[in-house]
Amino acid sequence: MEINKELMRRDAPIGVFDSGVGGLTVVREIMRQIPNERIIYFGDTARVPYGSKSQETVTRFSEQIVRFLRTFQVKTIVVACNTASAYAMDILEEESDIPIIGVVKPGARVAAQTTRNGRIGVIATEATIGSHIYAKFLRELNREVTVYGKACPLFVPLVEEGLLVDPVTDEIARRYLAELIDIDIDTLILGCTHYPLIRSTLSRIMGERVTLVNPAYETARELKELLGQMDMLSQTPPGLGSNCYQFYVSDKAEKFLRFANSIIKYGILSAKAVNIEEY
Amino acid sequence: MEINKELMRRDAPIGVFDSGVGGLTVVREIMRQIPNERIIYFGDTARVPYGSKSQETVTRFSEQIVRFLRTFQVKTIVVACNTASAYAMDILEEESDIPIIGVVKPGARVAAQTTRNGRIGVIATEATIGSHIYAKFLRELNREVTVYGKACPLFVPLVEEGLLVDPVTDEIARRYLAELIDIDIDTLILGCTHYPLIRSTLSRIMGERVTLVNPAYETARELKELLGQMDMLSQTPPGLGSNCYQFYVSDKAEKFLRFANSIIKYGILSAKAVNIEEY
Repeated sequence: MEINKELMRRDAPIGVFDSGVGGLTVVREIMRQIPNERIIYFGDTARVPYGSKSQETVTRFSEQIVRFLRTFQVKTIVVACNTASAYAMDILEEESDIPIIGVVKPGARVAAQTTRNGRIGVIATEATIGSHIYAKFLRELNREVTVYGKACPLFVPLVEEGLLVDPVTDEIARRYLAELIDIDIDTLILGCTHYPLIRSTLSRIMGERVTLVNPAYETARELKELLGQMDMLSQTPPGLGSNCYQFYVSDKAEKFLRFANSIIKYGILSAKAVNIEEY
Repeated sequence: MEINKELMRRDAPIGVFDSGVGGLTVVREIMRQIPNERIIYFGDTARVPYGSKSQETVTRFSEQIVRFLRTFQVKTIVVACNTASAYAMDILEEESDIPIIGVVKPGARVAAQTTRNGRIGVIATEATIGSHIYAKFLRELNREVTVYGKACPLFVPLVEEGLLVDPVTDEIARRYLAELIDIDIDTLILGCTHYPLIRSTLSRIMGERVTLVNPAYETARELKELLGQMDMLSQTPPGLGSNCYQFYVSDKAEKFLRFANSIIKYGILSAKAVNIEEY
């Protein structure tokens, strides 16, 4: 569908969604880079995780969330979840008359610029790796690169258990990363929004010669660029009132709020639960 | 609601559900103990896991699944998931005119009979432990027992990653179980249907003096007893055709089928995906 600029207002909020809390690492970057913008965030905490589920299911969930976010007249939507970006972006873009940005393309772009030896590793959920989406975008950008994908299904539960710096996380990371070290990659994409939270462990194991790429930063940069080109950047800072950042989840609003406040240093005033299956 | 025996037919199937694959350990026991019965199984693989979600959400999911199972005119329903048994049993029973059996009560009953020193440990998901449901039933059975609950959120992902016998699973189990060993329990309830799959690890760490209780066995026994009392046991063996055991899931039917065939030694012919949100 074509973008209909009539539907976009400069002072409208940006919609951001993820399967749960991981997308908050993207929200944090948007807040830093374009602080004038209002944000509506949705985390699908009733159906998390997405990374082990099928394309059909993740697409249906994503479509429901887009319908929910559009009830706020958002001017654009950021898919702050690698699995949803890998599985659902094509359909979401096709169905949408406002811009939709995923995290995969921006992450791939910076990795293609970063690598010197042409060997790029991607760590992500089973779903994202199985989709080969990073390899597809990376090869479109640079036909010379070789891409090595590795699914790391235990990282999300380890992060959610709070084992950010722990011998068990070390041991699991060493197993997952061993083949990427053997292959001598020089660039590693953190292809899941949870992974920046164990960045120090990953960085220590991969060693100094490997650059870690966090797609959250680049996604916020691309969002800023897109809104700038369309003359859609908000011109006035939102008051620090309750309305500038709104958080919705499909379950456990209290638990989400605690986690969110540990990641984002603004005091998040509240998170509301909604029944997403009704959208 | 009162049980309406008019709605039950002897040769009707039994409905069984779980958040995913764990409930198959209960199905296996039912097949062993009452082999004449037909079974309709539903695994909610699109929304797994339940153990970190809220009572409201788990109850809504369970109600949808009961509505789905009742389209098969099942004569009774087994809630083969500890979290759903802990959170939703009261409401499901209240709403139902056919018998509904959970896994918690049977597990509590055998533990209360087993303990000699009155110290019983329960390991389970965050949700089941937080509900204090095992403690409630155990104290109803025996006011003298003391119950020690310990949430073990990493066990399910470790099992699903196939690390059934692994140094990492050992290390995590040692951490989770340390306080139960210190407290000198003599009976340990495996309060999540995934846990029997790491029974050998748990047993080695707890030592010979601790009896492990697997509620699956006792649940099948209680089901047999109930159907016997109501004169509702199937009198004829089901042919080994495609209709005696039917498996449905909300996502990833193929992956479920592989896992199921590794647990249940009958060849499971097929698993079908359904959109459970429509029920």
